[in-house]
Amino acid sequence: MAQRPTGLSGFPEWLPEGRLVELEVLDTVREVFELHGFTPLETRSIEPVDVLLRKGEIDKEVYAVRRLQADAGDEDLMALHFDLTVPFARFVVENASRLDFPLRRYQVQKVWRGERPQEGRFREFTQADIDIVDIDHLATHHDAEMALVMAEVFAALPFLPPATIHVNNRKVLEGFYRGLGIDDVPSVLRAIDKLDKIGPAKVRALLVDAGLTDDAADRVLALAAIRGTDGRVADEVRALGVSDPLLEDGLAELVGVVEAAQRAHPGAVEADLHIARGLDYYTGTVYETTLEGFESFGSICSGGRYDALATDGRSTYPGVGISLGVTRLVSLLIGRDLARATRKVPSAVVVAVVDEETRPASDAVAHALRARGIPCEVAARAEKFGKQIKHADRRGIPFVWFPDAAGDTVKDIRSGEQVGADASTWTPPDTDLRPRVVAVTDIHEGAS
Amino acid sequence: MAQRPTGLSGFPEWLPEGRLVELEVLDTVREVFELHGFTPLETRSIEPVDVLLRKGEIDKEVYAVRRLQADAGDEDLMALHFDLTVPFARFVVENASRLDFPLRRYQVQKVWRGERPQEGRFREFTQADIDIVDIDHLATHHDAEMALVMAEVFAALPFLPPATIHVNNRKVLEGFYRGLGIDDVPSVLRAIDKLDKIGPAKVRALLVDAGLTDDAADRVLALAAIRGTDGRVADEVRALGVSDPLLEDGLAELVGVVEAAQRAHPGAVEADLHIARGLDYYTGTVYETTLEGFESFGSICSGGRYDALATDGRSTYPGVGISLGVTRLVSLLIGRDLARATRKVPSAVVVAVVDEETRPASDAVAHALRARGIPCEVAARAEKFGKQIKHADRRGIPFVWFPDAAGDTVKDIRSGEQVGADASTWTPPDTDLRPRVVAVTDIHEGAS
Repeated sequence: MAQRPTGLSGFPEWLPEGRLVELEVLDTVREVFELHGFTPLETRSIEPVDVLLRKGEIDKEVYAVRRLQADAGDEDLMALHFDLTVPFARFVVENASRLDFPLRRYQVQKVWRGERPQEGRFREFTQADIDIVDIDHLATHHDAEMALVMAEVFAALPFLPPATIHVNNRKVLEGFYRGLGIDDVPSVLRAIDKLDKIGPAKVRALLVDAGLTDDAADRVLALAAIRGTDGRVADEVRALGVSDPLLEDGLAELVGVVEAAQRAHPGAVEADLHIARGLDYYTGTVYETTLEGFESFGSICSGGRYDALATDGRSTYPGVGISLGVTRLVSLLIGRDLARATRKVPSAVVVAVVDEETRPASDAVAHALRARGIPCEVAARAEKFGKQIKHADRRGIPFVWFPDAAGDTVKDIRSGEQVGADASTWTPPDTDLRPRVVAVTDIHEGAS
Repeated sequence: MAQRPTGLSGFPEWLPEGRLVELEVLDTVREVFELHGFTPLETRSIEPVDVLLRKGEIDKEVYAVRRLQADAGDEDLMALHFDLTVPFARFVVENASRLDFPLRRYQVQKVWRGERPQEGRFREFTQADIDIVDIDHLATHHDAEMALVMAEVFAALPFLPPATIHVNNRKVLEGFYRGLGIDDVPSVLRAIDKLDKIGPAKVRALLVDAGLTDDAADRVLALAAIRGTDGRVADEVRALGVSDPLLEDGLAELVGVVEAAQRAHPGAVEADLHIARGLDYYTGTVYETTLEGFESFGSICSGGRYDALATDGRSTYPGVGISLGVTRLVSLLIGRDLARATRKVPSAVVVAVVDEETRPASDAVAHALRARGIPCEVAARAEKFGKQIKHADRRGIPFVWFPDAAGDTVKDIRSGEQVGADASTWTPPDTDLRPRVVAVTDIHEGAS
């Protein structure tokens, strides 16, 4: 049964069975990130407002934070971070002398944005980021690497609809616009960023409003329509008759990224020249990711190259990163009932209690099972066995253990089979040891 | 080398090698909690202020949260949660019809308190909680269970100094005070809560200030001095000559908890009648935990029974819970250099790059290693091998892999031993596969 968030709009909460789905995503993400050598990091949730808004163009709505009992003006204004990249850049500059570069780190934390909540868009949500930063120069092969690591994450989540990582390059867009003689690049980026939402006709009107000629607006839209997975993308762009050195730099980078990605993981990544990433701090490669059949849900994994975000005046720390929107993804999996946990709790076994006097014997069984890695719980009350079995059944716990001085037994409550068992040797089947998260289609097939 | 938090006072941040220590604690906590059948849950970080302060006596300083661009008064006042128990109680009441009781849940999240930062006390910190709640009645054997689960967590962290869980019961304190004719119980609780900080002489003065006779103050302090692990605790209390039915209820519960704990895990838990837990919402059993040699650091694991926190008018949801102060614990481990990660990154191997043209061959080696669960990274630059080895050495990565058309080799850079290897079969020793967190004494012994 699909589960909806409750309570405050934009602040989702999952029941335990939903949290198990989220944990499966988080565990998978961490496993893939660590296999690729990304080291874990967290930053504080709160930053001075001026750190968050230093990149003046960022248009995120932030949540200010102040002690309830503070007098106005007695503290610097603080706010909850709205992403993990800006705080990471601050952390890198602050700790540069104690870090090893290039630094590969992953960071999984909640972020907050005061935006209007809607399907897939929340005010509190979890992001899972990887970034690589170096000093002064960061090699471009990392731009392909970021996309490929995320492609591995998607491949490791079998209940996920097919994902495509769309890649563009800010230099392509800015070089192309410059080559067309456009002055107000931010307005054009902002308009192109709305293509998915309002369509090309309305974007064209916005472009003309921003002062573009009909011809320039047509060429901007023609650029945004280009897709591909190899060097022909650059040919199609050049066929639009705009030339600029920055455009050529960007095309070389873009083709390099999609060709490297195509070699390593065919079909996972495509060049998509309408990806703009709004007013963010990106300077080169940018990423967005859609799920087949759920394109309207928005990007579930975005990011890009930021060559100028982190600097201490002497050195700059160019970086590239990509961020999985864990809450958006999990809200889709739960809300559209695509994935479910096989049970609601970790326990594989309920150890029954005959009466309160023999509870220690039941505790001893549980202790022996846990010592061999088998999650279990002891019945809370020495009720009739039927009620204790119902306790297990309601939670989807597959086994009930009956301590008995004449010889313990364990019952598989799905089949009803009950066999003699020794707590120091009995083991459930591997598939029953922990709750698993499976595609709902698998559940239906299993039941048919 | 010990590592100190940087930046905003009270908002700790760890370098990657510190975050690895924290993750070891978090992974251990989760593993033990799940073995005991606690199911995962998170609640939103933000609550309406009236939810947080509904229990009027709670004296935590909260952080108010408001959209930076909101007009004053256009939203209900919200705040960051200061613990995980009050939000959990709200969640239980809100979702009671969709939850199974008794509910065993664990919850690991950040909380925020606007208190003055000092050693071991932070404004942002992570707590790891377990709670069991039931409808209308919760069996008292769970009070012992909470302490025993945490004792297992401590036993599973070999680098931790020996921990003692101190248990008391609010009914003992309140019944004793009532039996002495004391009216202002909160003032006495608040005074007793200061024993560790200011000592008995100053607490006695506070008690007399609060209107207690010299004799009553002496008996309150005599009660607070009692310790033990069995029924003799109750005898010592009764010998103080105070009688009250609530006191007797409390003594029966307290002796039950410490005796059950003593049977299951000797030495882990003791009755300690000076534990009061300030003005919190507890109604029975209360817990605090000290680490041998670091008593002044304060309690690293606290909680208690709350029979009246969660109610929807028709039903009450009595609960018992205990909370590990993860950040306080980790700040001790890192700040006092008690535990260290064996390296700074997950990678067990750096795959060297001969030149940029053959980078795909190095990528292929990494892909083959990762497919068998071996974390690795490919060198960022095709530098001289000496520099690539230094990249590994600086991070503590034990192995460097050299792709070679004539036959790959892998070098253990600690011993210098270099051997032929096949990426589809080579495996590092178990102890090198992942970074481990070890006691610093082990490091010194290993080096000697």
